[in-house]
Amino acid sequence: MRPDPASAAAARLACRSTVAPTAGMAPGFTQCNMISLPRDWAWDFLLFAQRNPKPCPVLDVTDPGSHQTALAPGADLRTDIPLYRIWRDGLLADEVADATEAWAEHPDLLTFLIGCSFTFETPLQAAGIEVRHIAQGCNVPMYLTSRACRPAGRLHGQMVVSMRPIPADRVAEAAMISGRFPAVHGAPVHVGDPGGLGIADLSRPDFGDPVQIRDGEVPVFWACGVTPQAAVMASKPPFAITHAPGHMFVTDIPDSQWQV
Amino acid sequence: MRPDPASAAAARLACRSTVAPTAGMAPGFTQCNMISLPRDWAWDFLLFAQRNPKPCPVLDVTDPGSHQTALAPGADLRTDIPLYRIWRDGLLADEVADATEAWAEHPDLLTFLIGCSFTFETPLQAAGIEVRHIAQGCNVPMYLTSRACRPAGRLHGQMVVSMRPIPADRVAEAAMISGRFPAVHGAPVHVGDPGGLGIADLSRPDFGDPVQIRDGEVPVFWACGVTPQAAVMASKPPFAITHAPGHMFVTDIPDSQWQV
Repeated sequence: MRPDPASAAAARLACRSTVAPTAGMAPGFTQCNMISLPRDWAWDFLLFAQRNPKPCPVLDVTDPGSHQTALAPGADLRTDIPLYRIWRDGLLADEVADATEAWAEHPDLLTFLIGCSFTFETPLQAAGIEVRHIAQGCNVPMYLTSRACRPAGRLHGQMVVSMRPIPADRVAEAAMISGRFPAVHGAPVHVGDPGGLGIADLSRPDFGDPVQIRDGEVPVFWACGVTPQAAVMASKPPFAITHAPGHMFVTDIPDSQWQV
Repeated sequence: MRPDPASAAAARLACRSTVAPTAGMAPGFTQCNMISLPRDWAWDFLLFAQRNPKPCPVLDVTDPGSHQTALAPGADLRTDIPLYRIWRDGLLADEVADATEAWAEHPDLLTFLIGCSFTFETPLQAAGIEVRHIAQGCNVPMYLTSRACRPAGRLHGQMVVSMRPIPADRVAEAAMISGRFPAVHGAPVHVGDPGGLGIADLSRPDFGDPVQIRDGEVPVFWACGVTPQAAVMASKPPFAITHAPGHMFVTDIPDSQWQV
């Protein structure tokens, strides 16, 4: 069934007034991570994304100073994400529900929209694979790993991953379903032992909320679009605006557009 | 069977002294299109590639002035392609087998390596699908289409496609096999009537050689990494070096790395 485009617009409207994670909103539509950087940092970032396509699949880049994207022509990138983070010199300076003032401060910002794994959660659910953070009504757990991204110019940092517990007999199917969507992180980067990614304790995620892992389930890790925020923390550009982890930009593009 | 890495290095060595299309060389290894542009044009090009991922899947970007790529650490990008094209103000100024002098002229060139559909010809052949230009021992036919790329900054132009005639009962399989390799153009962009792409006469390709189309075969069109050369012709940057169509850079990366 083709998803109703009105649901994507309605989700963005709701995001203007409600601060909550967006997993499960507007099922069937692509969700995006966001990072806005001064023009002077745009080349470094686009190259960083090209060199790290699993965590940073770029779906659109705005013109300098623009708040509009081809992924959702009617939307305003300054208001249509539930929660933004304002970064100064690599430090989290503020979290705001409306980033209009922050944008006005730097009129030359370029905005990058990056695929989000929430996009393939709809096909996972359609296959009968429970997505635990949606079932629990919380944010997805995300972890800073020990795996270094390939640096680009002034940008470097470790990869961030999201985690979903999957029953052992459905892991292969979850890998294949998500693998059909390389534009929104694709197949898992790691299955099983969190120690292999340098993660000490699954119950203490670096971003988002912990979720229950049941007997017979395996933690499965996907590259995550919060990786640019880890790069901001490590590389300290003078200014950046990002979405808050788990609080995504809902686009008008059906999931199916990315399927290979 | 894992392809022998020595065959990729041997192919590059052969390309230093022999001018011939590279389809069929070093089977199992990724081949690349190449374009080198002055640093001032690098942002426009990387954005053009992001906006047109089917014809321009970027696999690596060099540092300014470098002739080395992570895709083949021992290689020299100035000599290891069989034939180069030198462009001045959007016009083809020269074709050379060694681009060392041209590179020396512009020490700030950045080089982009872009996936090539020759990469999925090995899996097509493994499935018993004949690749006509390899069977005929000629270059693949390529056509300038009427389909506009999404512009980026000063860069614009029409998409170029490669064509392979496929028996009607194997078209679906050819689409699925190539579709698993989005990093090297992925699934076809058009199947059948050349008129739908604005191509008047299949026997007169814009680049490469015509191939025989047999009864019961359908022309199948894939996005092509010669598209940047069409953008050079249309957008007229002051200087560029590219490979000559069909004369690719052979990397050390096995095809399988790109499979989703």
